[in-house]
Amino acid sequence: RSPLCHKPMKVSMSQNQSYWASVNAEVDDHLARAIPVRPPLSVFEPMHHLVFAAPRTMAPALCIAACELVGGQRQQAVAAASALHLMHAASYTHEHLPLSDRPRPGPTTHHAFDANIELLTGDGIFPFGYELLASLDDPSGNNSERVLRVIIEVTRAMGSQGMVDGQYLQLNCSESDSDGSFHVGSRNRVREKKVGGLYACGAACGAILGGGSEEEIEKLRRYGLYAGITREMLNGVGREENGFLEMVQGFRSLALKELKDFSDGKVNTISTLVDASFCYV
Amino acid sequence: RSPLCHKPMKVSMSQNQSYWASVNAEVDDHLARAIPVRPPLSVFEPMHHLVFAAPRTMAPALCIAACELVGGQRQQAVAAASALHLMHAASYTHEHLPLSDRPRPGPTTHHAFDANIELLTGDGIFPFGYELLASLDDPSGNNSERVLRVIIEVTRAMGSQGMVDGQYLQLNCSESDSDGSFHVGSRNRVREKKVGGLYACGAACGAILGGGSEEEIEKLRRYGLYAGITREMLNGVGREENGFLEMVQGFRSLALKELKDFSDGKVNTISTLVDASFCYV
Repeated sequence: RSPLCHKPMKVSMSQNQSYWASVNAEVDDHLARAIPVRPPLSVFEPMHHLVFAAPRTMAPALCIAACELVGGQRQQAVAAASALHLMHAASYTHEHLPLSDRPRPGPTTHHAFDANIELLTGDGIFPFGYELLASLDDPSGNNSERVLRVIIEVTRAMGSQGMVDGQYLQLNCSESDSDGSFHVGSRNRVREKKVGGLYACGAACGAILGGGSEEEIEKLRRYGLYAGITREMLNGVGREENGFLEMVQGFRSLALKELKDFSDGKVNTISTLVDASFCYV
Repeated sequence: RSPLCHKPMKVSMSQNQSYWASVNAEVDDHLARAIPVRPPLSVFEPMHHLVFAAPRTMAPALCIAACELVGGQRQQAVAAASALHLMHAASYTHEHLPLSDRPRPGPTTHHAFDANIELLTGDGIFPFGYELLASLDDPSGNNSERVLRVIIEVTRAMGSQGMVDGQYLQLNCSESDSDGSFHVGSRNRVREKKVGGLYACGAACGAILGGGSEEEIEKLRRYGLYAGITREMLNGVGREENGFLEMVQGFRSLALKELKDFSDGKVNTISTLVDASFCYV
């Protein structure tokens, strides 16, 4: 038995894969409609390109799955899921900007646009993401408190205590890695703030929008945190670290523990995110 | 008579100056409390520095003045006014980043931090500004619709159709200026999108939060647009352009025209923003 396998599923893996595929397709479709390639091309072409060129994560899909798990409708979470990808894409773009005080990126980082345009496009994508979130408000649906709460969740996940903190730590990490002084605790903090924070935010936002209880929201937030970290590690990031497999297994167990009180059959689907054989990014 | 003087004030200039001074002091105070210099210093020190080092505008003060003009209380607009300065400061910081594909800034642009830190700090200030806005919500005050509307106003003013568009146009402007092909229409579009858009947003947000009518909101939005442009020109930006004084006078008249239906005595104070002898930035 692989140390990464887990208890048998009630539904088949292919059913789960098709669930995630349909959720991801819905997010893609929403993004494509929200960011068409239309005039002025100087603005929308780079925006469209950078949004779709950024590596996908499962955080938006988790947002929708969490919403459905607590009894909400998929449509309640699609815009927030799209906004999460926008935030991630803008952040990823800025993270790869060729700044004059860091080495130019290697040939593996392809830049389709000038650095100035990539900087500005990132700065344009962030507010567009917040606009999508604020537009979730449906005056007849009386959901503005939920929408405002989701906005605060996203600002915190992306801000100086979240994603930006993780990027800052990682910057220090790459600098100190050359002399080997960067230890596993710091690496895990980067994971917690970056990928973990994004997934945690996605899960919490989905649960909020779907009308979950406070307890469900917090359980799903923690599930997202551990699931994001587990997924990144399953994708091989950091595999050279000591005790890597044990760490993955540890995060995976922490993730699954948060799901044990959910009785709905959908819990099997959501749990496949931390499955080693799961084939999405 | 200077071409820039206008009709006599009912209240003295010194009273108006002290009004603006007290409003600006309140915004500063709010910002200082919102962004204390506290641990982790690596995050809060650059944030505090860049927020207070960015040039001040009167857009936050106009937000508060517009709120009061339509009958609102100053406290309803202070957080939004602070958020507007945060957005401006983050945007200003990114605009002055030393990117590898543009010339390094001259000795007049002082950089207290590495480019990486300035990029990340800007990326941290934006979400913090949105968080301040979303936190304006007071469940007992039943104002969440207004808060969401203000968030959308700010995203549009800052996004790819607003500030970012202006920065993009200005980038092209500086490139084409060397061969003299950039004309006054483009310069005015930069003014409209950058400084004009910031002031228009400030005025509209203040009017929304203060409970103004749709007509008042739109009049104040247009007042802000023209007032922002007028102020920038009064500060001398673009004075080498042909017909500069006539243009300033034109924008100033457009601004004042928007105020003529407001009967409140406070209209005299708000109108001093476009007065040539007004001494704030």
